[in-house]
Amino acid sequence: MENETIRLIEVKESIFDDNERVADTLRARLKGEKTFLVNLMASPGGGKTSTVIQTVARLEESIRVGVLEADIDSMVDAERVAAEGILAIQMRTGGFCHLDASMVSEGVDVLGSVPLDLIFLENVGNLVCPAEFDTGAALNAMILSIPEGDDKPLKYPLMFSVCDVILLNKIDTEALFDFDRHRFEAGVRRVNATAPIFEISCRTGEGIDAWVAWLTAKIETHNA
Amino acid sequence: MENETIRLIEVKESIFDDNERVADTLRARLKGEKTFLVNLMASPGGGKTSTVIQTVARLEESIRVGVLEADIDSMVDAERVAAEGILAIQMRTGGFCHLDASMVSEGVDVLGSVPLDLIFLENVGNLVCPAEFDTGAALNAMILSIPEGDDKPLKYPLMFSVCDVILLNKIDTEALFDFDRHRFEAGVRRVNATAPIFEISCRTGEGIDAWVAWLTAKIETHNA
Repeated sequence: MENETIRLIEVKESIFDDNERVADTLRARLKGEKTFLVNLMASPGGGKTSTVIQTVARLEESIRVGVLEADIDSMVDAERVAAEGILAIQMRTGGFCHLDASMVSEGVDVLGSVPLDLIFLENVGNLVCPAEFDTGAALNAMILSIPEGDDKPLKYPLMFSVCDVILLNKIDTEALFDFDRHRFEAGVRRVNATAPIFEISCRTGEGIDAWVAWLTAKIETHNA
Repeated sequence: MENETIRLIEVKESIFDDNERVADTLRARLKGEKTFLVNLMASPGGGKTSTVIQTVARLEESIRVGVLEADIDSMVDAERVAAEGILAIQMRTGGFCHLDASMVSEGVDVLGSVPLDLIFLENVGNLVCPAEFDTGAALNAMILSIPEGDDKPLKYPLMFSVCDVILLNKIDTEALFDFDRHRFEAGVRRVNATAPIFEISCRTGEGIDAWVAWLTAKIETHNA
C-alpha cells in the first residue's frame, strides 16, 4: 500500500530555538512568496483530512495547493489526500504531540512553497498542545465536530481563543447528539469575540461553499 | 450554577519527581487500601464522563465509588457526575495536557481513598500525552468513539498499546459513519495483543452490562 509519490519526513522538536522568532520568519517568508499557510487543528477524528479534501475540491483551479500532513505515526492521511490528486507530504512527529515552527519550516521546504498559493497544514489531532505553539501560519483554523459536544469551548479555552475561524463539522449527524448551538456559541464567545463559525458537513457537502468563499477571499488578500 | 459540594483542586506538574516511582508508590498504597484506581483516557468528546455515569449506575451498590475529574479548565464534568449523586472532585490542570502520578496522588488524598473500593480518574481529553505518563492506576482504560474513525490505532499507537481494555463507544451512531470494525481491530492488534474490546453505547445503554461485569471481576480480584 506504500505510495511512492508521497514523501515522508521525520520531524523533531528544536528545543534550542526561539519558536516565536522562527514562526515570524516563516510567516514573513511565505507572505513574500504569496503562499497562504493555514494551520488546521482538531481532535482526533474531527474531520481535518476530510475538510482539506472537500475544500480543495471546491477551490478555483487557479489556486495551487499543497498539504502538509502531520501525524505521530502512519501515512494514512497523506495517502488519502494524495489519492485525490493533491500534492501532499507526510510529516511524522515520532510521538510528539504538536508541531512547532521549525518542523513546519522543514515541511514547507520539502513541499516547495514558491509555486503554491495555499498550503494546508494538518496538525496533530489534539485540542491541547497545538494551541500553544505558533506554527508560522497566516491563519489558524479549528474544527469541532458535533459528536464531541457543545461544552468543548469551556474545556479547551486556549484552542478556541487562538483560532481565527471555527468549522463546526458533521452537522449531518446532529439528530443523534445533544448538541446545543447556543451553548456552543456562548462558550466560544467567552474566549473569542470575532472568529466566524461555519457549519459544515464533509459527508454531505453542506456549508462547504460558504467556508471556501471566505477562505478564498483571505487567500486573495494575503497573496495580493 | 456553582455546586458547593464539589471540591476543586489546582494541580501542577512536579518536574523534579521521578514519575515512575511516585506511580509505583501510589499503586502499592491503593492496593493496600483495597481501592481500585482506573485511569480513563479518550479524545475530547469520546464519552469519558458518560461512561463513568453509566458504569457507576450499574455497579453493585456495595462498591463505593469516587471520581477524579481532570480538565484544563471548567467544572463541567464534576458537576455532571455529582448531579448523579456520585462523589467527585474536579482537578484543574491550568493548561496542562495530561496527568502525572503526583497530581493523581494529590487528587486521591483530597477525595479520600480509604473508604472507597473504586476510583475513576477521568484524564484530560487527549489521545497523545496521557499515554506517556503512568498515573499509578491499576487499570488503564481507553475509549474510542465510532465518529472518530477506525484508523485511530494506526495514528495513536502508544495510547492503544498502553491500555488494558478498550471501550468502543457510540455504537448507536454507526449507521452514520464509515467505521470498519475489522480494520479497527486489526489496527488495535498490531500494537496490543490482549486488551479486550467492549462495544458500548452510553446513550442507549447497549453493551454496558458486559463491561461492568468484567470491571467488577477486576475490582474483586484487586481488592481481595
